[in-house]
Amino acid sequence: MAIKLTDVKKLRELTGAGMMDAKAALENAAGDFDKATKLLMEKGAQLAESKADRSALQGIIVAYLHPGDRIGVLLELNCETDFVARNEDFKKLAHNLALQVAGMHPIYIAPEDVPEEVVAKEREVYAAQVQDKSKEAAEKAIQSKLTDFYTSVCLIKQPFVLNQELTVENIIAETVGILKENIKIARFVRFEVGDRS
Amino acid sequence: MAIKLTDVKKLRELTGAGMMDAKAALENAAGDFDKATKLLMEKGAQLAESKADRSALQGIIVAYLHPGDRIGVLLELNCETDFVARNEDFKKLAHNLALQVAGMHPIYIAPEDVPEEVVAKEREVYAAQVQDKSKEAAEKAIQSKLTDFYTSVCLIKQPFVLNQELTVENIIAETVGILKENIKIARFVRFEVGDRS
Repeated sequence: MAIKLTDVKKLRELTGAGMMDAKAALENAAGDFDKATKLLMEKGAQLAESKADRSALQGIIVAYLHPGDRIGVLLELNCETDFVARNEDFKKLAHNLALQVAGMHPIYIAPEDVPEEVVAKEREVYAAQVQDKSKEAAEKAIQSKLTDFYTSVCLIKQPFVLNQELTVENIIAETVGILKENIKIARFVRFEVGDRS
Repeated sequence: MAIKLTDVKKLRELTGAGMMDAKAALENAAGDFDKATKLLMEKGAQLAESKADRSALQGIIVAYLHPGDRIGVLLELNCETDFVARNEDFKKLAHNLALQVAGMHPIYIAPEDVPEEVVAKEREVYAAQVQDKSKEAAEKAIQSKLTDFYTSVCLIKQPFVLNQELTVENIIAETVGILKENIKIARFVRFEVGDRS
């Protein structure tokens, strides 16, 4: 079937994929644009996973101040080489992550960073709410509430502020797909005037 | 004696003091410019102390990134009113403090923020170095080394990067003298790429 060049171009812009990758995805999706986007995202996520073990010790520090200077964020984003650290796509990702932290107020980077006692306490609260359900249904409901909890407090699990259809994890995978290096959020802080939490 | 108007002007620029205060300081110092500067600094410090009990819950967040984006600082500076938070002198002070943190790498804000166990450990190290001295001389030497330690690790005790003759405490007192409000460093962080200390 014929793949429209405008679709290839649009897909490349959206996902940052190369020309051949975008074309192949559209072919595999039989021209279905949304399906092709999904295919490319999955490929990016797989690539991100395959890069995840490689050490990421280069990178940049990025700062973001909300207009009014009452909310500020400092974030360290790591990659593997100094070359990528100076890349514009990498810098843009770092800026978007800082913006995300300012607006969405995550507390942890990833679910594995949430202390065990915090998870246990959440579990307890949820368990009390589903007492009347069967054991199986209760556990399922608790898991679902825990997933919601991670989505709310973990940076990489949050919907991305500039495109709520993607998660932060997705947009990182996207940049990994472009730059072909392991990319890792090392740490972040968010200061709000008068907030001591 | 006659006070030179150029001296009054220079003194005002240097210390941010009002016209009458600068003139009075020069008169009290019999025209000696350096002495007048010192008098005004002391007055600023006294004023800062008299304001220190007043609550400072307004303020701004300020960020500083070293060229190259490998060192970044986020700092919260508090004052009493939103009006002062938007003042240019206040913003300039906040910027200079962030610059100071980036360049001079303080760990604490003030000596009272250094944990007791850290002070105890420093004392121990110093004590071992002055074993051969008399008790009195040893204690004096230890005190002097502790003062050096505070000067090195506490932000407000450090020499100011842009004018090593002043301490950070001095430049804060200077701005308090201009703005007549309690000004307080609430917190700061310093990120350096790859540094996990």
